[in-house]
Amino acid sequence: MGLVVQKFGGTSVGTIERIKNTAKRVIAEKKKGNDVVVVVSAMGKTTDQLVSLAKELSPYPSKREMDMLLSTGEQVTISLLSIALAEAGFEAVSLTGWQAGILTENVHSNARILNIDQTNIRHHLIANRIIVVAGFQGVSENNEITTLGRGGSDTTAVALAAALHADKCMIYTDVTGVFTSDPRYIPTARKLGAISYDEMLELSNLGAGVLHSRAVEFAKNYNVPLEVCSSMVNEDGTFIEEEVQVEKSLIVRGVAFEDEITRITVFGLKDKLTNLSGIFTTLANKNINVDIIIQNQTDGENPYLSFTIKHEDLRDTIQLLESKQDELCFDHFEYESGLAKVSIVGSGMISNPGVAAKMFDCLTKNEIQIRMVSTSEIKVSTVLEESYMVKAAQLLHTAFGLDVVEQQV
Amino acid sequence: MGLVVQKFGGTSVGTIERIKNTAKRVIAEKKKGNDVVVVVSAMGKTTDQLVSLAKELSPYPSKREMDMLLSTGEQVTISLLSIALAEAGFEAVSLTGWQAGILTENVHSNARILNIDQTNIRHHLIANRIIVVAGFQGVSENNEITTLGRGGSDTTAVALAAALHADKCMIYTDVTGVFTSDPRYIPTARKLGAISYDEMLELSNLGAGVLHSRAVEFAKNYNVPLEVCSSMVNEDGTFIEEEVQVEKSLIVRGVAFEDEITRITVFGLKDKLTNLSGIFTTLANKNINVDIIIQNQTDGENPYLSFTIKHEDLRDTIQLLESKQDELCFDHFEYESGLAKVSIVGSGMISNPGVAAKMFDCLTKNEIQIRMVSTSEIKVSTVLEESYMVKAAQLLHTAFGLDVVEQQV
Repeated sequence: MGLVVQKFGGTSVGTIERIKNTAKRVIAEKKKGNDVVVVVSAMGKTTDQLVSLAKELSPYPSKREMDMLLSTGEQVTISLLSIALAEAGFEAVSLTGWQAGILTENVHSNARILNIDQTNIRHHLIANRIIVVAGFQGVSENNEITTLGRGGSDTTAVALAAALHADKCMIYTDVTGVFTSDPRYIPTARKLGAISYDEMLELSNLGAGVLHSRAVEFAKNYNVPLEVCSSMVNEDGTFIEEEVQVEKSLIVRGVAFEDEITRITVFGLKDKLTNLSGIFTTLANKNINVDIIIQNQTDGENPYLSFTIKHEDLRDTIQLLESKQDELCFDHFEYESGLAKVSIVGSGMISNPGVAAKMFDCLTKNEIQIRMVSTSEIKVSTVLEESYMVKAAQLLHTAFGLDVVEQQV
Repeated sequence: MGLVVQKFGGTSVGTIERIKNTAKRVIAEKKKGNDVVVVVSAMGKTTDQLVSLAKELSPYPSKREMDMLLSTGEQVTISLLSIALAEAGFEAVSLTGWQAGILTENVHSNARILNIDQTNIRHHLIANRIIVVAGFQGVSENNEITTLGRGGSDTTAVALAAALHADKCMIYTDVTGVFTSDPRYIPTARKLGAISYDEMLELSNLGAGVLHSRAVEFAKNYNVPLEVCSSMVNEDGTFIEEEVQVEKSLIVRGVAFEDEITRITVFGLKDKLTNLSGIFTTLANKNINVDIIIQNQTDGENPYLSFTIKHEDLRDTIQLLESKQDELCFDHFEYESGLAKVSIVGSGMISNPGVAAKMFDCLTKNEIQIRMVSTSEIKVSTVLEESYMVKAAQLLHTAFGLDVVEQQV
């Protein structure tokens, strides 16, 4: 008998029927003789609806009040799921973030979990109750309700699993696991049996979307065994753990891609060191997320800096750079929209120096021009024209042997 | 400069427009130089919607989980109202029941307030913030979210006013004050300038509906000055206080009425004393509210007991009496539906012995048969046929001089 943490996202609890279905998954785990702690998100579109109510009152509602408002979404789901579990004959108790002892920083809309006070949860576990915890929310030391930002419910689940030394943390989603690529675009993509934390981290960051990177990071730090699986289909999902023994043969374990990328190039930086930090601090202060950064520190006359942003941040970025041109000491800047990022990920490439070369070769042979390159130990990213994105991903998927193999289980 | 508690019900915060309007009322009070604590209910139909979600999952959801579920309703309103206040340039902070220190019994769905820990509220008052508290909810000593039952938000407001020694507790409703009778049925009804706690208590109990009796009782016990006024119209409401000096001339201050009353008569009670308690304990255990009770303890052969219930409880009552006939030792019982209760209320009647006689005379003269009578020091209630209810109320309203007087301010 062990302890399992199960996390269900907004789609899995989006309707009364789905809540009933989720209750069945929870009961199945309980019937195996396990203690079960369930973490749920708000029902389907609830969060969006609450946000739009607030926006009708104010274009910039305070983050504190938004946390008060949005945290009701999960509280509705935990009580409904507990009611469904009780109706099926299983004793269940719902706990809000503060009742579950999820202590966070005193920061609104994007707080980090500092500690979990297990007193209340342990009390209910001893009484053999299924515990249903509101994801995405916590409480600061001065009793303020906080929320954890994007992917918050994943983080709640992993943090609880870490604190309670759970045997497993199961993340239920609307897909059956982690795929070698997005099956909506790459029909030959297949589900991975297992993947390492680092690989998953690269894939989450690259927009694979199954699991939030903060949660994966948390799981890696506390060595929490994760399983990503489907809330609809009964089959094994993808295990995420430190050492992945299976599929060692695959050097590349996934191809990720993301569109609506814009490249900004800043020319004639006067004082490179100061200005580098100046530019990125200025952008960060406005919550503009910078992804790939390339700077070639040459002794030439025209030093330049390139970086990529999401297209939606372009207007703010232009405005910022224009208004601070004097302060940041550069000549001029240019931008290029309509780009995409295609990346290959795999721990195996650390010891395989030819991987990047093979990637470039594959793209070039197919006349796809590479605009930028960025590498990490387990990832190579390329920036290219958006119109080539899916084609490039499919080519790489095939080239690195990721396509579905017939008879594969 | 004083401290004012304002309470707004579900209608006053039912839409975004109404929340903006409510914010204006709050700001007007703040601009007078007062500290303001606002108590709000859930938006319009929110509670009903949440209840029906729960009922889709279970016919009898646990009271604990219903408290978790329903308490989200007020939490949504407090944050939205705080956002509206901030948008208008006033610093505001929303507090849930537990954040406001509203400590209750550890009972779900109908908890009583035990104490109010003012620490957090005082902290925000010192910072000159408008405080927006979720009505209807509190927290028990073991950190369980509780709700206060019907009229809970009124009770929250009065309890806060008592604890904070507020100068006034203003209850905003969709009517402009307390009327001599329900203006929807009695067109000549007029607004009272003032009324005593006891009179208001009788009127709330009799279904006047403006203010919940628990809240009035609380106000009476702690001597909290109340004002019932309109959230839509700018005019003085009705003051509720201990000693009402104005309108002393009115012996009767209001006519209340209520339909869908059923009378149960139990015949041949074997052991009267034991069985009286037995019957009412049995009914109370099933949450069946008994109103008027009449027992004529004669030495005759056929002792009987009559009492009235709401028609909606008739099925349960019949089932109970049938199943417990042997245990409760009676011969048989009868019931009569289609009845109504019409009452006159006024502190003045204590010293005016002819009031009841005048009431009976007025009804009898108009050929309205009185089926039951019940009296208290400041109230006389009659039970009569439902079809005569409004007519009887109008006749009494006129007979006791309550009709609108021309030129009355």
